[in-house]
Amino acid sequence: MDTRSTARAHGGTQGVYSHTSSATGTEMVFSVFVPDGDGPFPVLWYLSGLTCTHANVTEKGEYRAACAEAGIIFIAPDTSPRGDAVPNDDAYDFGQGAGFYVDATQAPWAEHFQMRTYIEDELPALVAAQFPADMSRQAITGHSMGGHGALTMGLRHPDRFRSLSAVAPICHPIYCPWGEKALSGYLGDDRAAWRAYDAVALIEDGARVPEILIDQGEADPFLSEQLQPDTLQAACSDAGIALTLNLQPGYDHSYYFISTFMAAHVRWHAVRLKA
Amino acid sequence: MDTRSTARAHGGTQGVYSHTSSATGTEMVFSVFVPDGDGPFPVLWYLSGLTCTHANVTEKGEYRAACAEAGIIFIAPDTSPRGDAVPNDDAYDFGQGAGFYVDATQAPWAEHFQMRTYIEDELPALVAAQFPADMSRQAITGHSMGGHGALTMGLRHPDRFRSLSAVAPICHPIYCPWGEKALSGYLGDDRAAWRAYDAVALIEDGARVPEILIDQGEADPFLSEQLQPDTLQAACSDAGIALTLNLQPGYDHSYYFISTFMAAHVRWHAVRLKA
Repeated sequence: MDTRSTARAHGGTQGVYSHTSSATGTEMVFSVFVPDGDGPFPVLWYLSGLTCTHANVTEKGEYRAACAEAGIIFIAPDTSPRGDAVPNDDAYDFGQGAGFYVDATQAPWAEHFQMRTYIEDELPALVAAQFPADMSRQAITGHSMGGHGALTMGLRHPDRFRSLSAVAPICHPIYCPWGEKALSGYLGDDRAAWRAYDAVALIEDGARVPEILIDQGEADPFLSEQLQPDTLQAACSDAGIALTLNLQPGYDHSYYFISTFMAAHVRWHAVRLKA
Repeated sequence: MDTRSTARAHGGTQGVYSHTSSATGTEMVFSVFVPDGDGPFPVLWYLSGLTCTHANVTEKGEYRAACAEAGIIFIAPDTSPRGDAVPNDDAYDFGQGAGFYVDATQAPWAEHFQMRTYIEDELPALVAAQFPADMSRQAITGHSMGGHGALTMGLRHPDRFRSLSAVAPICHPIYCPWGEKALSGYLGDDRAAWRAYDAVALIEDGARVPEILIDQGEADPFLSEQLQPDTLQAACSDAGIALTLNLQPGYDHSYYFISTFMAAHVRWHAVRLKA
């Protein structure tokens, strides 16, 4: 692991790191905020949305004050493999910057786009080895495509993540334009293979967590066509999962929205990580 | 005035606006955060540093939560005129992005680089006309070159600004490399003309405010050569100005530093704006 930068911030250390990933076959960059004090600290994962790198939330997310106060490590991975040798697509919603947190099975994507394995297995092992992280106390959140990543990863690993939240997540990608494009491209046409990457489908197929927190802006231009929190609300209701869905009047899909509710999510996770 | 964007954020509205400036002869962009509620609201000006536009602090400054809570309007202007028709310099510390908040007198800069008039006169009139601002209650702060701008503007207008702070300001530009380059370039070789643009010189020449708050990172790479808070400390001591100079161990010159102490500055100004 290489340290690209570190800076003191909000009573902790904000670092940016890189390493050669065996999962993606590329160099991957991620950021980690470590609070001051004696670790090990519980860990909050934040998965980012379409077009983002680790940098967007690191610069605009306004999570550091709350993480320092709660004594929580905050990890922000990239959203895909990158580089000239990695396949790409001209669209913003497919290819580099749009990994959708899946292990691709289709050419030419399968060689590098192994983001599920990267985020679920490889990066946690690196974090456990390199940072004062208490891996027995993990939580996960994310935004938009990263909210989809957080929901699906949290639902697949209820024993690993003590708490699960998202802001403006893609809730039901197998039935929205972003999801259908990405999942067919990365996984092929067999829709049965898509269900491991869809929060609603995972719940329909039996996945359970006790509770989920979601904040969603009512002025989000992607709300009804792409994000569809009503589908998750129905699935949670049927499954007995306590979903807190906060619809926030006037808020859009941007980091102005995310940063507004970030501290509340950090504190919500902190209560559960320290219970 | 044109509205480039508005977004709901932290219980208020973050906007980005542009207008044709008569002072600079260019289109100028600035951002304004307006809290919810019944105005008029007191105003906190934030002047940015070298290379910055309005966008850096707007995205990374972490001021909105504190301004919303205190009921304060936050205004972030650009740091210079910009555009293909505006003179420039290849260096990061002169020309576009480096206006130093002076009214230039030297060719080719004088035609457009009238940032003192722009920030002191033209933009306040626009803000007063367009936003629910209580212009009888103003405060000013800034970072680095913008800290220099805030200090000099605050010292020149003690009746306008109820409170004055800065983070990592250039305190004595007439005797540091950044300042000597900029002031000679914009104002010519007569150093007497530079003194209206130097906080230490203004105090030496009689300017008075009751108090100043400064936060300064001890790991700031520009501390001893460019920023020199010790010179301001000596001038304030001689003049009976109550300077609170917080040296922050380990902090650098970046927005990781600025954002850490932003809320404390907002709250410090809020107490004085509402006294």
